[in-house]
Amino acid sequence: MPQSSVYLNGQLVSTATASVSVFDRGFLYGDGLFETLRVTDGRPCRWLRHLSRLERGADFLRIPIPTGASELLAHVQELIVINAMPDAVVRLVLSRGSGPRGYSPRDTNAPSLVISTHPRLIHDDTRPPRWALVTSRVRVAPDDPLTRFKTCNRLPYVMARMEAEESGADDALLLNTRGQIVDSSCANIFWSKDGVIHTPPIASGALDGITRTALLETAARLNIETSECDVMPGQLRESDGVFLTLSTLGVVEVSSIDGETVPSNPIIPRLRAALEQHQG
Amino acid sequence: MPQSSVYLNGQLVSTATASVSVFDRGFLYGDGLFETLRVTDGRPCRWLRHLSRLERGADFLRIPIPTGASELLAHVQELIVINAMPDAVVRLVLSRGSGPRGYSPRDTNAPSLVISTHPRLIHDDTRPPRWALVTSRVRVAPDDPLTRFKTCNRLPYVMARMEAEESGADDALLLNTRGQIVDSSCANIFWSKDGVIHTPPIASGALDGITRTALLETAARLNIETSECDVMPGQLRESDGVFLTLSTLGVVEVSSIDGETVPSNPIIPRLRAALEQHQG
Repeated sequence: MPQSSVYLNGQLVSTATASVSVFDRGFLYGDGLFETLRVTDGRPCRWLRHLSRLERGADFLRIPIPTGASELLAHVQELIVINAMPDAVVRLVLSRGSGPRGYSPRDTNAPSLVISTHPRLIHDDTRPPRWALVTSRVRVAPDDPLTRFKTCNRLPYVMARMEAEESGADDALLLNTRGQIVDSSCANIFWSKDGVIHTPPIASGALDGITRTALLETAARLNIETSECDVMPGQLRESDGVFLTLSTLGVVEVSSIDGETVPSNPIIPRLRAALEQHQG
Repeated sequence: MPQSSVYLNGQLVSTATASVSVFDRGFLYGDGLFETLRVTDGRPCRWLRHLSRLERGADFLRIPIPTGASELLAHVQELIVINAMPDAVVRLVLSRGSGPRGYSPRDTNAPSLVISTHPRLIHDDTRPPRWALVTSRVRVAPDDPLTRFKTCNRLPYVMARMEAEESGADDALLLNTRGQIVDSSCANIFWSKDGVIHTPPIASGALDGITRTALLETAARLNIETSECDVMPGQLRESDGVFLTLSTLGVVEVSSIDGETVPSNPIIPRLRAALEQHQG
């Protein structure tokens, strides 16, 4: 395999040696943001939406993005070609960079920006097409403005994923402190009931997922009614189909939750197919 | 100033060039832990307690600590001497290291461990001896097991500190999603009322602070009654003194909260002096 590269602060460097200071606030405090995009036929999917979320997050955290939008896209496209990864995943990481010790971001002037490519499937991902979920012990705070972005504070999701693996499940279901369903460790959650597609509102603590929005738009195009509503785990059991959405895999059906089988629903492959046709 | 060093994975390296991979999960997800210790007369204060919290956190996150306890202390002591920092702050950072993309920590086998020394006061810290607090918009989740440790997921505290600076305050007061007082961005909070010292319980979402525990023990030695109890912001206004505890500065009195003056109380300097005498 040829040596691959990453873009680090506007410079192409070897993947094997690309590094940041041990005083980078990304490393110390998770003080940063990231985006993970699918690449299909050499094209980063839903680029403008991912860029927009990164920009909104950077604005909220007050981290200046050191590279202009068009240059950023050029670097992403160049990296896809250089690394020969036309069907892959691109990850962007923006951290606040290094500064004096302590939480105050004052005197932190040089953000770190990393662009990397990755195989679409993680090599050890032997999960089936339909995922078994278990409910995590992790509870997220509702109405947390930080959940609107993909911040680098991801320990709750790491812990939840670890719980899922320990119990032999494919992913974990996260609840908020009110006990309502929020999302899975790496995806937004949807369920169907009598032909209507439901998903928790962002205010529940759910990530404002790019694919979540695209799924809602896809449903509208198909004249499928959608509803954003809070739901307790018990109510989810009464649904007639559950699925997840995530940028890298699109729509993933859920086969069971905490060992209870979830019915298969033909509306889900229909939504998946329609979503795959619109990657804009 | 002579070139200073850090210990990075058991090796002494220059502070200026010490770095970790851009794929280190500390950088990507805040998937790690840290400790900040005060160094007095060349000795790291409350070393065993900090080490114990690091070990408990590492056990919870399932990150193996790559260096044995006695070797770790030897490295800390050596660094204090090499960097000529007998009155300073030592920071330890343990991250899970690099692995495949995604939240799953599988196939992540080489943790990163960084030991660094820092001036005790951050150079631009011009805060007065008594701090003015403002209430942050950030809300933390109560009963979150992750708040028991110093994880590298610190964005809520970064945001809270930023809010404080924007409003000209010295630090921010954090509430949990139940609206109860939890702690400040970098310290545990205490208040006195009729001779009794109160502090929120850890279950409120407060950090299990080393200096918090030491303060409670100090009060017991002085026969001052203590109580761990939930409190709403309004009740704090009825107290007769408020203070913070943090490893690097010990006891810091609070002068005001959201512009309302907090009374000065002689019990606070008494506790501070007694705490300073016991750094074990």
